[in-house]
Amino acid sequence: MVKHSPGEKIQITTKEGEVFEGIFIPSTDKNTFIIKLDNGYNIGIDIKKIKSTKRISAGKKLNVFPSLNIKQSEGLPSVSVIATGGTISSRVDYSTGGVTRLMEPGQIFSLAPEISKIVKIRKIEKPFMIASENMDPDHWVKIAEETAKLLNSDDRGVLITHGTDTLHYTAAALSFMLKNLNKPVVLTYSQRSTDRGSTDTALNLKCSMHALLSDVAEVMLVGHAEASDSFCYGLRGTKARKMHTSMRNTFRPVNDKPLIKINGEGNISFISHNYNKRKDAEKVEVDTAFEKKIALVKYYPGADPCILDYYIGKKYRGIIIEATGLGHVATDNAKKSWLPAIKKAVKKGILICAVPQTLYGTLDPLVYDEGRKALEAGLLYLKDILPEVAYVKIGWVLGHTKNFEKAKEMMLMNYAHEFNDRITPDMFLF
Amino acid sequence: MVKHSPGEKIQITTKEGEVFEGIFIPSTDKNTFIIKLDNGYNIGIDIKKIKSTKRISAGKKLNVFPSLNIKQSEGLPSVSVIATGGTISSRVDYSTGGVTRLMEPGQIFSLAPEISKIVKIRKIEKPFMIASENMDPDHWVKIAEETAKLLNSDDRGVLITHGTDTLHYTAAALSFMLKNLNKPVVLTYSQRSTDRGSTDTALNLKCSMHALLSDVAEVMLVGHAEASDSFCYGLRGTKARKMHTSMRNTFRPVNDKPLIKINGEGNISFISHNYNKRKDAEKVEVDTAFEKKIALVKYYPGADPCILDYYIGKKYRGIIIEATGLGHVATDNAKKSWLPAIKKAVKKGILICAVPQTLYGTLDPLVYDEGRKALEAGLLYLKDILPEVAYVKIGWVLGHTKNFEKAKEMMLMNYAHEFNDRITPDMFLF
Repeated sequence: MVKHSPGEKIQITTKEGEVFEGIFIPSTDKNTFIIKLDNGYNIGIDIKKIKSTKRISAGKKLNVFPSLNIKQSEGLPSVSVIATGGTISSRVDYSTGGVTRLMEPGQIFSLAPEISKIVKIRKIEKPFMIASENMDPDHWVKIAEETAKLLNSDDRGVLITHGTDTLHYTAAALSFMLKNLNKPVVLTYSQRSTDRGSTDTALNLKCSMHALLSDVAEVMLVGHAEASDSFCYGLRGTKARKMHTSMRNTFRPVNDKPLIKINGEGNISFISHNYNKRKDAEKVEVDTAFEKKIALVKYYPGADPCILDYYIGKKYRGIIIEATGLGHVATDNAKKSWLPAIKKAVKKGILICAVPQTLYGTLDPLVYDEGRKALEAGLLYLKDILPEVAYVKIGWVLGHTKNFEKAKEMMLMNYAHEFNDRITPDMFLF
Repeated sequence: MVKHSPGEKIQITTKEGEVFEGIFIPSTDKNTFIIKLDNGYNIGIDIKKIKSTKRISAGKKLNVFPSLNIKQSEGLPSVSVIATGGTISSRVDYSTGGVTRLMEPGQIFSLAPEISKIVKIRKIEKPFMIASENMDPDHWVKIAEETAKLLNSDDRGVLITHGTDTLHYTAAALSFMLKNLNKPVVLTYSQRSTDRGSTDTALNLKCSMHALLSDVAEVMLVGHAEASDSFCYGLRGTKARKMHTSMRNTFRPVNDKPLIKINGEGNISFISHNYNKRKDAEKVEVDTAFEKKIALVKYYPGADPCILDYYIGKKYRGIIIEATGLGHVATDNAKKSWLPAIKKAVKKGILICAVPQTLYGTLDPLVYDEGRKALEAGLLYLKDILPEVAYVKIGWVLGHTKNFEKAKEMMLMNYAHEFNDRITPDMFLF
């Protein structure tokens, strides 16, 4: 077989007679040939199934992170950006296999030139550049610190570009870690990379910049509201979740509605009026104490309660259980009841909380006898909170107190609208 | 404080001056007073907050599982029922604190008298009566065996009444365990108990009976399609999930559409035509071999990969990982990369599979470098399968083979439409 270089356009013929054309991409698996098709998708082909390959054209330098040389207008409101990685702020250079990064305002303008007429980008901070599945609580702390520093300047708001996979976890972390938030903090993303016709980058960036100039001093996720390229929602940082692996409108509100609807021209309509207002003159405080000995555990039929003993043994301090229905775990199945393990953990001062595995709706331990037994065993019911948000919250709460009763009380406090007392039927599958 | 008996109507006045009226319910927690309000909801009040209570009326025997004495019409098609517990087939008698169970056809007719004009109920089997959060794989096996026995009779189909919490897990188990399915198998439920005005029991039962007489020889969940009491859907057993803690239309299709739409009068419209047709003359086979050394693990930022080592140590044979986005786990965060643990497990012949944490959409390990690394480490990508269904499937697959390569192959086979190659945007948040 001909040897190809990354970036070359090649044609592959399989033993079954199929023909594929695309850009050759370096693969870490020597048994698989990967090419990027014209539609932007990558496919992998088992090397054993390939009959022949040929070069169609030499590797051209796919310029990778173009930069528009625009002189920034001093009269525009100033914002800053924190680039953390993800599809939106990194680009693979197929000619080298390397990755180039978002480094300067001109690159953001090249993604959506209209932005240069909306804001002046004062600073781009790059504390790290990673795919968001590689983030952990230390990264959240770093982002919170950088955000607070930028907010306590003349900027109108701070934009964080982020991979989609764990963006909602980061949004929740910032919601707890930024106290007395004075200005909008917007997280945005690309679900489809900018070299694809269906990219969502430009609209998401434009809407994000408009959201930064709004009155909403909340941590918000801004991105596509619909499958089409129509407009964006601004979602509350504690009430949103990535719900689809590939669709552009992947981030959805759960047990809540969006805060705002924004279009590319900057028209903002308010869906909720329950938000904190901008107070530019005040300072945000950063409060990042975080306990990392925490876990998120899903309950399912046949699940062995020994998993709780495992975490007790590892000196974990808090566990979130994704319970079934209104907040249930096995209670009377002799070998598999979770109640003894819950009681044991609680006795040792470990905080054990239930969240809804259904995602939508709120827990209620009082409806069935099984719930009342679990409540009595010491399981703390976290109402309608999202599992991912509860995981972040328990780390933050346990970072702030060693006192078990105080921690329980804090878990039930509504710090950042993570609980919604007014869930309506139209919030289901919004 | 006055001593009350279960079933009495009482009035509670709190120290803050609130007044509640309802039926006194026995509580397992001596510090909490529980009453059932007129709207059907239970509330619990901390005994320390209560100023006084008084009896409004004596406990009347709330007749609990009434039975209609209807002579069954011999001319109607015959079906059988397996009652497993849950709200639909058990009722708390507040006058005694005891639970009564669905035992005879007259009780089903009393829930929805129209049913006596649709079908003749030949048998009601009661292999066990438990809340569905107490089920485990042994219960699935028992239900599958009972179902097969009933299907291989003159019955037109089999109805299974079941608690809602884990109904979708049982539906998936039956989808794999019943081979060459000859007739409809319908699982139904009550999300709101029959003593509430908003109960869903009657419509769900009527629609289920009509579904049993249909041409669809599939395992289906039948229940409310909408928040209102309008009509039901029949959902595929491998593509449905409980998505809301309390709404009646809680079961939703994920990466699929409903198979059928049914109303209370028995009008059925087909949404999908991709189903197996009734073949009354054939026999169903029951194939319940199941490996219980399996686990479902969620990946999240900061998740310690040692959890895999824990299961390796306990000699587990299969693990489903709820991965982020297109199928990612930490790959380059030095301390927290999951790749070494995955490699180690795979080397020991443990099957490690990825499923989408987003629930909606399909995995694709080839889009990003992180996915390609995980694929190379041996992570098996289970496309668009639901996490709960993947958990059931891996148990069933490993019950059938000790051979690692064969198990991988079986995990990727489409046995019961658990994979959908034709996902369309309108299947998102259906």
